Amino acid sequence: MHSPVDVVGVGNAIVDVIATATDEFIEGQNLVKNSMTLVDDERAHSLYDLMGPGIEASGGSAANTMAGVASFGGTAAYIGKVAGDQLGQVFAHDMRAIGVEFDVPPADTGPATARCLILVTPDAQRTMNTYLGISSLLEPSDVQVETVQRGQLLFCEGYLWDVESAKQAIRTAMAFAAEAGRRSALTLSDTFCVDRHHAEFRELVAGSVDVLFANDAELASLYGTTDLDAGLAAVRADVELACVTMGERGSVLVTADEIVEIDAVTVGPVVDTTGAGDQYAAGVLYGLARGKDLATAGALGSLAAAEVISHVGPRPATSLEALAQQFFT
Amino acid sequence: MHSPVDVVGVGNAIVDVIATATDEFIEGQNLVKNSMTLVDDERAHSLYDLMGPGIEASGGSAANTMAGVASFGGTAAYIGKVAGDQLGQVFAHDMRAIGVEFDVPPADTGPATARCLILVTPDAQRTMNTYLGISSLLEPSDVQVETVQRGQLLFCEGYLWDVESAKQAIRTAMAFAAEAGRRSALTLSDTFCVDRHHAEFRELVAGSVDVLFANDAELASLYGTTDLDAGLAAVRADVELACVTMGERGSVLVTADEIVEIDAVTVGPVVDTTGAGDQYAAGVLYGLARGKDLATAGALGSLAAAEVISHVGPRPATSLEALAQQFFT
Repeated sequence: MHSPVDVVGVGNAIVDVIATATDEFIEGQNLVKNSMTLVDDERAHSLYDLMGPGIEASGGSAANTMAGVASFGGTAAYIGKVAGDQLGQVFAHDMRAIGVEFDVPPADTGPATARCLILVTPDAQRTMNTYLGISSLLEPSDVQVETVQRGQLLFCEGYLWDVESAKQAIRTAMAFAAEAGRRSALTLSDTFCVDRHHAEFRELVAGSVDVLFANDAELASLYGTTDLDAGLAAVRADVELACVTMGERGSVLVTADEIVEIDAVTVGPVVDTTGAGDQYAAGVLYGLARGKDLATAGALGSLAAAEVISHVGPRPATSLEALAQQFFT
Repeated sequence: MHSPVDVVGVGNAIVDVIATATDEFIEGQNLVKNSMTLVDDERAHSLYDLMGPGIEASGGSAANTMAGVASFGGTAAYIGKVAGDQLGQVFAHDMRAIGVEFDVPPADTGPATARCLILVTPDAQRTMNTYLGISSLLEPSDVQVETVQRGQLLFCEGYLWDVESAKQAIRTAMAFAAEAGRRSALTLSDTFCVDRHHAEFRELVAGSVDVLFANDAELASLYGTTDLDAGLAAVRADVELACVTMGERGSVLVTADEIVEIDAVTVGPVVDTTGAGDQYAAGVLYGLARGKDLATAGALGSLAAAEVISHVGPRPATSLEALAQQFFT
């Protein structure tokens, strides 16, 4: 188990509970469409009681990304915390079954495995309500230096910033990566998440992040400007590479001296946008780890995002490796 | 809670774990494709460890059928046993969320909620491995006379016959139904299930069953003849109505003096045949409960089966009521 891996992900280990919902339900519950809200155990239960029948699937932003890297044929390891309950077993099984190393032992006391109640509206947008449970007890001691340093890239999710110990776990992981000359990547995760941690994210991005993933709204929130060019100018001064997604308008990859525009890809009707950003990151990270140029890495990201939004569930339902061969050869 | 309902279902309360698998995997694990095998906890774990990543969805044959009845706009109640664990909560939630009454209290001791490891091969066939867990502890005392007698029809799954106490629960339920002049329906479930309980099934069908659901193979197994006409002649002497499915060749409904042939329906490419028989029964039972003629009831069955095989998962992913309006008006 000492071989190098393409990417090491750190995030909240979550099982998704996915149900369809009407716009009226979203409004009636005062939910903010297309964003993530943290809920406590009580609210999670009361919302669940009101939701339609669901399906359960392993999720978690960085975990979904690692599943995507593995689906491309890449190698990945994951750091996150589950409980020793049924959903924790499901999460661990699904990571290992897709070939992602996951060695953090389940917690034997404390709250349940995290779950995210995802409501998918007829417009294919998802509204997420996360009960963090045991996942928020991830702490620096769960981050093994050897695991981090085996990765070509480290990938952390911004969502972790909502909990103090998890935040320290990210800082620890990024320090380990820097020590070994590895690049650290961060996804900003969500505009509300950026708003909650604005100053710290600015400092982290400028000081410790090499590769930043954000959508246009998150970038705007981070730099306080809705002007995309101004946001791109600001971010290229802060990081080596920024990958900014713009939904169906594709994405743009910027470095100090390059701007590469990437078209969106279509593989089928859009059914459920859950996991689009996670899978975009998977394609780009896999491409970077394998030494692809930015245009190719971005195209892999677009393809992976297109696949995941063509079906219900946050992880690839088909081999991204095979899909990439079909699209690019 | 004293209003009448269309159908009361009795069955093993199970959460499905659905993964894709290759034919080589099915052969390598000595599994019998397209049938159901009972497994113990140890085998369930070892098989799960070898399976690919899964999605979890509430299942159970009669429970799926009740979900289908509700999706048609019908009313239904369900009798089955879950544990007080996370999967038991998922099962109960999903029943209630779709509008099916489910009042059997979760067991607070004993094994875990039942799960069925379903392997879907590229030909869309499913191979099921069921760990019965707490579901097999269903017993006559769980069957409330009032619940059974509120149903226009009682529907029991043959799978229950694998456990002595559950068998007695069926007998109890059928006796309650007969007492109130309600019809009892049974599905034979699986050829191996018929083989395991051949003599008892023959006696039960002849003595207590009014409406029988079977596929052609199960009918052949029950009456010891592969000649369909001979099987139909035998079954029409035993029950008031027999509904015999023949896959893509449609189905046939036979009574003492009528034979109604029903065509199969297509609503999309066949993705996963899990739940086809359960949903066929849902359409027929809903039609019977609502006083439709046999041709209409059969057509509703075909439609419900067609919907469920067009996606992954054992229950309708869309409103069967809306689908029926679209198809039949």
